[in-house]
Amino acid sequence: MPLPSAAAPIMLAAMGSFHVGGREIVVSGLPIRTTAFTPHTTVTYDPNGHYAIEQAYVQWFRPAHPSTDRPVLFVHGGGLTGASWETTPDGRPGWIELFLRRGFPVFAIDNVERGRAGFCALPGIWDGEPMARNAEWAWELFRFGPKEGYPDRPFPGQRFPIAHLADFARSFVPRWVSTNDAQVAALIAAIRRIGPLDLVCHSHGGELALRAACACPDLVRAVVALEPSGYAETLDPARQRVLTVLGDFLDCDPYATARTARMRDFAAALTARGVVNELWELASRGRPGHSHMLMMDRGAEDLAEEIAAWLLA
Amino acid sequence: MPLPSAAAPIMLAAMGSFHVGGREIVVSGLPIRTTAFTPHTTVTYDPNGHYAIEQAYVQWFRPAHPSTDRPVLFVHGGGLTGASWETTPDGRPGWIELFLRRGFPVFAIDNVERGRAGFCALPGIWDGEPMARNAEWAWELFRFGPKEGYPDRPFPGQRFPIAHLADFARSFVPRWVSTNDAQVAALIAAIRRIGPLDLVCHSHGGELALRAACACPDLVRAVVALEPSGYAETLDPARQRVLTVLGDFLDCDPYATARTARMRDFAAALTARGVVNELWELASRGRPGHSHMLMMDRGAEDLAEEIAAWLLA
Repeated sequence: MPLPSAAAPIMLAAMGSFHVGGREIVVSGLPIRTTAFTPHTTVTYDPNGHYAIEQAYVQWFRPAHPSTDRPVLFVHGGGLTGASWETTPDGRPGWIELFLRRGFPVFAIDNVERGRAGFCALPGIWDGEPMARNAEWAWELFRFGPKEGYPDRPFPGQRFPIAHLADFARSFVPRWVSTNDAQVAALIAAIRRIGPLDLVCHSHGGELALRAACACPDLVRAVVALEPSGYAETLDPARQRVLTVLGDFLDCDPYATARTARMRDFAAALTARGVVNELWELASRGRPGHSHMLMMDRGAEDLAEEIAAWLLA
Repeated sequence: MPLPSAAAPIMLAAMGSFHVGGREIVVSGLPIRTTAFTPHTTVTYDPNGHYAIEQAYVQWFRPAHPSTDRPVLFVHGGGLTGASWETTPDGRPGWIELFLRRGFPVFAIDNVERGRAGFCALPGIWDGEPMARNAEWAWELFRFGPKEGYPDRPFPGQRFPIAHLADFARSFVPRWVSTNDAQVAALIAAIRRIGPLDLVCHSHGGELALRAACACPDLVRAVVALEPSGYAETLDPARQRVLTVLGDFLDCDPYATARTARMRDFAAALTARGVVNELWELASRGRPGHSHMLMMDRGAEDLAEEIAAWLLA
């Protein structure tokens, strides 16, 4: 997949976005309040009324000359948005563009409370507080390097563009840990609206996508799970298949080791259920150095091509 | 500008996104906590460290055959995101697509704390609480109809697709009213990164765009302000020009009347300073029925074409 500067135009038949799913809630009994609103005005603000909450946002691009009629829906990880599949932190084309150039109709979700989906700012609806992610935590969780190496001494051979760690950190958004069920529901609503498709999901999005796939055996043909953080195995062996992809440095700390074991167990559980699946441990497939942010790493272009071929097979 | 179903492909030379601006803050002294993180794990979460806050997100599309080398940067209104410029609530192509088809390089911002820019979830950084918008408030503020007409009896001749009010409400996101300066700073950072451009801004985005334009007389040539909610008049008469666009129902309630008067005063103030500017009151230009959400209304396609012509003139 060539870089855009050297490439032929991306030819789109159409592009757009929609919000989907969620629920309407009615607030009553709260006091009316007055607040500064613009430099010129205050407003009398009545918080009582009808609110849309727990919807998802989906942006889509339809190529003019598709190589398949089966779209890919990208599902981001926790504390991230659909922007994860756009330009990488060091300015390379992201997977949305690469898959579009490969002829896939492409959809990318911002799930409930992330990005353009919006979050619920009304008190008492969601449990807990939103959690922010700092660069140190990302460094560890995403396996960029040893804890003491933050921010510029990564693991040897690291493919993540560490010099752009600060740019990457700007793409973090807060997350709740109590909204998983709402996120699965909104993802299912998105799948039903789009129609038959394949899911490419990452990390926390892996759990959501696998749960949604189990609920939609007629609509989700394949799930590509990039280092999923949660699982659902009740897929339909007759209609669905799974590709699980793992990066490198899988035993760099006890948390990572436990997580790696669960991902391997997941693949084994699928096999035991008769679900056609593959487990790609990239380091043992001649592609060492991948972090948890597989789609941003150097060489993500080649991985996208391999995954595209698997989806089209 | 034809609808995409009947249209030639949209030909892009490139597409992408970036986060820009903001600042890094360092948190220290907070207790380490343990929290449920996935269905399988709890994490020990150290909130101390480096956070990126107050950045903006910008998505961009570069046409393969531009009609101008001067991009348009769309700046959304309050409680909204860059999705305002995408597909309308009733499924028509939005202004991003229309301007792209017209040959403009197009950029769309999610400003600080909106959409993919993310918000600051750390305590004590921003003043006040995020404010959610209910459908009733939007109905009044956006001049869809008389208060007692909510949700299905709009003003006669209303161009906003009222039947899709619930879809529109799904696109609302919370907003703070204390982050204006950070938003102006991030918008200026975006402008400096993009280079010379024109701004098309809406409502709360009007205030931000006009302030940014005053700070960047060498980079912002023109500002198209769709019903701006705040103003800055110190533009450079030698280099900058302004188009202010007002919809209909401008005196439907006292708040609207006061707002209309300020928008007219703003245009007069520009003229007094010698800034080339036009004030388009659409109802008196043969285009009655426009709400505050001009870019989503029926006929928004014709308005986009008029604005594109004004920008290219």
